[in-house]
Amino acid sequence: MVHDLRVGMIGGGQIAKTHVLAYHSLGLLHQITSVRPVLASVAEANESLAMSAAGRLGFESWTEDWKVLTRSDKIELVDIITPTYMHAEQGIDGAEHGKHVLCEKPLATNAADAKRMYEAAKKAGVANMVGFNYRKVPAVTFARKLAQSRSLGKLFQFRASFQEDWAANAEMLLTWRYAKKTAGGGALADLGSHVVDLARFLIGDVKSVCGIQNTFIKERRVSQNSDERKPVDVDDSTIALLKFRGSDVLGRVETCWCAQGRKVFLEFEINGSDGSVYFNLERPNELQVYSSADPKDRLGMRTVLIGPAHPYGEAMVFPAAGTGMGYEDSVGNEIAELVESIENGKMNAEPTFYDGWKASEVLEAIRDSCTREAWVNLNS
Amino acid sequence: MVHDLRVGMIGGGQIAKTHVLAYHSLGLLHQITSVRPVLASVAEANESLAMSAAGRLGFESWTEDWKVLTRSDKIELVDIITPTYMHAEQGIDGAEHGKHVLCEKPLATNAADAKRMYEAAKKAGVANMVGFNYRKVPAVTFARKLAQSRSLGKLFQFRASFQEDWAANAEMLLTWRYAKKTAGGGALADLGSHVVDLARFLIGDVKSVCGIQNTFIKERRVSQNSDERKPVDVDDSTIALLKFRGSDVLGRVETCWCAQGRKVFLEFEINGSDGSVYFNLERPNELQVYSSADPKDRLGMRTVLIGPAHPYGEAMVFPAAGTGMGYEDSVGNEIAELVESIENGKMNAEPTFYDGWKASEVLEAIRDSCTREAWVNLNS
Amino acid sequence: MVHDLRVGMIGGGQIAKTHVLAYHSLGLLHQITSVRPVLASVAEANESLAMSAAGRLGFESWTEDWKVLTRSDKIELVDIITPTYMHAEQGIDGAEHGKHVLCEKPLATNAADAKRMYEAAKKAGVANMVGFNYRKVPAVTFARKLAQSRSLGKLFQFRASFQEDWAANAEMLLTWRYAKKTAGGGALADLGSHVVDLARFLIGDVKSVCGIQNTFIKERRVSQNSDERKPVDVDDSTIALLKFRGSDVLGRVETCWCAQGRKVFLEFEINGSDGSVYFNLERPNELQVYSSADPKDRLGMRTVLIGPAHPYGEAMVFPAAGTGMGYEDSVGNEIAELVESIENGKMNAEPTFYDGWKASEVLEAIRDSCTREAWVNLNS
Amino acid sequence: MVHDLRVGMIGGGQIAKTHVLAYHSLGLLHQITSVRPVLASVAEANESLAMSAAGRLGFESWTEDWKVLTRSDKIELVDIITPTYMHAEQGIDGAEHGKHVLCEKPLATNAADAKRMYEAAKKAGVANMVGFNYRKVPAVTFARKLAQSRSLGKLFQFRASFQEDWAANAEMLLTWRYAKKTAGGGALADLGSHVVDLARFLIGDVKSVCGIQNTFIKERRVSQNSDERKPVDVDDSTIALLKFRGSDVLGRVETCWCAQGRKVFLEFEINGSDGSVYFNLERPNELQVYSSADPKDRLGMRTVLIGPAHPYGEAMVFPAAGTGMGYEDSVGNEIAELVESIENGKMNAEPTFYDGWKASEVLEAIRDSCTREAWVNLNS
Repeated sequence: MVHDLRVGMIGGGQIAKTHVLAYHSLGLLHQITSVRPVLASVAEANESLAMSAAGRLGFESWTEDWKVLTRSDKIELVDIITPTYMHAEQGIDGAEHGKHVLCEKPLATNAADAKRMYEAAKKAGVANMVGFNYRKVPAVTFARKLAQSRSLGKLFQFRASFQEDWAANAEMLLTWRYAKKTAGGGALADLGSHVVDLARFLIGDVKSVCGIQNTFIKERRVSQNSDERKPVDVDDSTIALLKFRGSDVLGRVETCWCAQGRKVFLEFEINGSDGSVYFNLERPNELQVYSSADPKDRLGMRTVLIGPAHPYGEAMVFPAAGTGMGYEDSVGNEIAELVESIENGKMNAEPTFYDGWKASEVLEAIRDSCTREAWVNLNS
Repeated sequence: MVHDLRVGMIGGGQIAKTHVLAYHSLGLLHQITSVRPVLASVAEANESLAMSAAGRLGFESWTEDWKVLTRSDKIELVDIITPTYMHAEQGIDGAEHGKHVLCEKPLATNAADAKRMYEAAKKAGVANMVGFNYRKVPAVTFARKLAQSRSLGKLFQFRASFQEDWAANAEMLLTWRYAKKTAGGGALADLGSHVVDLARFLIGDVKSVCGIQNTFIKERRVSQNSDERKPVDVDDSTIALLKFRGSDVLGRVETCWCAQGRKVFLEFEINGSDGSVYFNLERPNELQVYSSADPKDRLGMRTVLIGPAHPYGEAMVFPAAGTGMGYEDSVGNEIAELVESIENGKMNAEPTFYDGWKASEVLEAIRDSCTREAWVNLNS
Repeated sequence: MVHDLRVGMIGGGQIAKTHVLAYHSLGLLHQITSVRPVLASVAEANESLAMSAAGRLGFESWTEDWKVLTRSDKIELVDIITPTYMHAEQGIDGAEHGKHVLCEKPLATNAADAKRMYEAAKKAGVANMVGFNYRKVPAVTFARKLAQSRSLGKLFQFRASFQEDWAANAEMLLTWRYAKKTAGGGALADLGSHVVDLARFLIGDVKSVCGIQNTFIKERRVSQNSDERKPVDVDDSTIALLKFRGSDVLGRVETCWCAQGRKVFLEFEINGSDGSVYFNLERPNELQVYSSADPKDRLGMRTVLIGPAHPYGEAMVFPAAGTGMGYEDSVGNEIAELVESIENGKMNAEPTFYDGWKASEVLEAIRDSCTREAWVNLNS
Repeated sequence: MVHDLRVGMIGGGQIAKTHVLAYHSLGLLHQITSVRPVLASVAEANESLAMSAAGRLGFESWTEDWKVLTRSDKIELVDIITPTYMHAEQGIDGAEHGKHVLCEKPLATNAADAKRMYEAAKKAGVANMVGFNYRKVPAVTFARKLAQSRSLGKLFQFRASFQEDWAANAEMLLTWRYAKKTAGGGALADLGSHVVDLARFLIGDVKSVCGIQNTFIKERRVSQNSDERKPVDVDDSTIALLKFRGSDVLGRVETCWCAQGRKVFLEFEINGSDGSVYFNLERPNELQVYSSADPKDRLGMRTVLIGPAHPYGEAMVFPAAGTGMGYEDSVGNEIAELVESIENGKMNAEPTFYDGWKASEVLEAIRDSCTREAWVNLNS
């Protein structure tokens, strides 16, 4: 007996497409056969957008009012793909009405809201996941496996960076992404949230932070039809030092969306006493691995092409190393795990809202440290 | 009014999965909305395999007899994913019964069969495509665009290689891929057919060839339950020189499935009087581009990350350079073009069976030149 | 009339070899013909070491007492290649006795000593250079040229790293490099001094810093004949944030000598509003260059192979891009400029002791910020 | 007692510089102390050139008549750096007058001349070396060690290429390098001779060959002061298949000096049953090494940075992996071995004139096969 998991999606923009692809491929790629996602309804800001999204994405129905979804008896899973400032109200409303909630990252514009979301989901006992999909890139998951198995020995350093360049275009409009109120921050919130989550995923809890930030393009145009420009109140670039709880590891994260030439340049390196790993999302199907135990004349970073021998190998479209997962596959892995955890009743697929909250705490502490020009401790 | 395009698939193995994904994503990724593929029926060698394939792949029905598909009134498109020796009979039967035919590569085990397939499809006026999907990798299509636009100037050299390493494992069983009768050849037929097609796609018709071949692992086990080994009668490696019709370009293609460390190492380089391009499928979302017109102190191969500005950019899951297409996306592009050409009645989506036949002629000439240790001319 | 420039070298260890090669090749590679360095005398810690060094390196004479060199009438240039704690006394004594002084980096174990060296050289009017040779790698000099010519537009970010792995070997003895008193610091003093100098060279003066440090291998063996281990009082790794004077550029430098797999991994990236450059010393003859002015479909990091069109191109052994300079050539470029500035009487070849002092100030501020866990301002 | 090895150099052009550097560094880098090369005399085409070369390169004297060198009692080693067509007469004259001979590559314009040179040297019992210096790049020597130690298992494939782009400039003058009579061939003789030598060095004797050639730029200007253009009678590009004696290895070599974007792109790959190596001269201090014995999830090409653990490691300027040898160092290694073999009386430093002759035979066979459009066998 196949269970129809009825999905209500709030927001039908760019990212929606990858989610829809993921729901479609659960059976084929993830061998999930006891449950079948049904694209029940999509909510958008107005009738025209909602209708168009439903047609384009293949939803059975649409609505202008997202509360129709969070409160419907016919919806089991609410998938939130809206600007960050809307996440808290939508996520909490969903949880309080017994819906499982998948929410895009960052979880909220501030740590307090993120915490409320976590608490609401916990209280409701619903599955809850924040969309830090890069955890689910097979090479990244494999890097964690190596780090935790002590293949790398005692861990020494974690350094991560996420650089893109689209915002270097000074003519980009002042959308919600460029405002603190709506996005919670700039590059740090949008891209940096991923590397902060990876710091937690790959190393562990963050104890204290100290950062610097800058806004290179101080004003942006408010609309395409006007030359009016208004100040940008979020960072174009942030660099931060990290100390970890209960660990000697030195950490550094950084992000910028004005780094010319870098497209989806999310890289990290972990160095341990016995080896290192290096990853770069621009070459997502490779992990560089070094072991100091190799013969002296054959020491070298290995370019490991990810394949069936690695995490999520069983979900490969074609089971051969190097054939490559695309961007959408990390989202597919994420949603597969969420759906499985709903089916088996454990509701524990990670990253949960707890992870989203903890990442938001770190982001907030970094912003705070930049303003105060001082180290900031996180609560334990 | 949406047209349901009913698909009958012959063969439900590894590659079937990518085709099914492609059929599912035509609307979402390729904005094809006037037609909707329906997975009508799948044929496999016996009841058990067929039933399992239908379940796994999501077909409405299944059959043990592929002729049920080629001759059914309810099927419009026959998708052939079987061992090469079966292609000709299946493809011709499909065409003769008015079905559009998509056939995996190489088109046939020999050029005569391939020609018969081409002629049957032509006579029937049906859409016909051979699955040389690497033409549809955006970076490859873009390389062709540069070569044809004369960005590279007068073309000088074309060199291509396809190296993999799974067959270096001497314990691989003697499957149909290792027999001339069933596969038409070894590495040359399986992998080399792709580079021969790329030679035609990127440069033009081949005039004459001269090659060498070798079988490194002379015998393979016939089954997992026995130690018996039988001779392999196909190549593990082939290297061939090419001359092109009406052109000065020097060509070289080569392939091996015993090249340790190379996973899906399909690379090519085109050098012209004014520039060069280099591609490697292990890094599928990059094209190296060189222009001799760059300033003298800034000459260099550029690593162009493929994105919305490039061919198939509108079909990207997420419209940002570097986010990357996966293995399945080249098949998606291929099937999208096939379906579009069916819908618009032109039946001309390439590579057609004509291309499949011409590639088979080259492959046969190469094999012939290896045996005769001499140059072999192709008919004009 | 050729001038014999008599060189007295203090210290005849590993690095001495590259200096000697450089003195030999001034005429051949740098077309310096009016002056000919003469390897007059070498000083070492005792008779046996000194005699051996003179023989091995080709000096006319040797001494156990370095003051014989700083005070000899027969020596014009003193070349100091000793442990850092000796630099100040030796350099000042040389300057006060009218000798030109070339001193290995870092200039001193602390900023006060470095300042005294700078002042002594200034007062004496002698040529003075600190051996930050990586400034003289052609790709690095070219990067600076691009940054200063505004090819990159307004500068946004400077990020640099120097990672090696030899100290990850826990059995390395507790030599002078692992003690604050003799080396002034650990990885930060040894490797980090280079990146701090590059920050000044490529961007400008540093205004304030904040760092973290760690010592991963807390104790090291005192000698090969004993198991006794003593505490290490210097850093194995340091990461620091930088703000620059009169500039918006965000800076980050970091270094570690326990980073498994990284050999001479000195990398930096400069991002500006219109382009970027990336350099890595493990591939010293390449500079990655990006320009946002390239055609939209051909945007990409260019791998520029350094050659005759670039800085120091006229000093290439073989005048062809990509033939490559070796490690010794950056030292050759440095010494050629020093000798030229002596010959032309300008005594201004950079990096001077002023640069050495300024780097030491930054290093000291970073160490200070690590201890105090706070931002530290540098004096203007 | 140090032996003064008096060197007479014939030809004082571009390449002379690297030889002179090598003679200077024998003691410092190669610990050769019992013999000291003396730059006795240099011969050039006329008085002005000869005098200038002597000054620039540091020779004690000069001559317009190279026979002064080959016949002088004061010269022990004749170093020939002249256009190829002069090698035979000069080399034979030197050998017949008892001189050791180092001759640049290719040894002669044709195999018959090369054989005469070999026989003359053999008869005279003098040391004789042909300047295939890329054998002496440490990564290349290390590749051979791996291939011969069976680390790679049974060898399957050898593929090598040497691509440069300076001749793509159609305005390059018709110098001796572009004429068969003076150079013996085009890209094949100049660059291809290196890869043919590497085929012999890395795999073994060549049994038969078949190639294609082309001249892309059919005419070149005869002088800078005239617009007159004359036909080029040598290849711009050659690609050849190779079979080896007593081996199953499939071989392919290719070369072009019009390959835009490729600067000193000398690459080779060796695939064996158990592993592979890949080398590229544009990154000379790296060897890619793959072993199929690595753990399944950590299989990958390793980027081995060459250092003290590798061949010629004791001759490194600075003894650390990755610090890098420059272009001149392979020539230094070559000359060090030649001088050592003179000193120890063995006269056997490779590659000898025998190797030069055997390479010339292969080159001639390739040219022949191109003309005849057929396979050509080499004599055993």
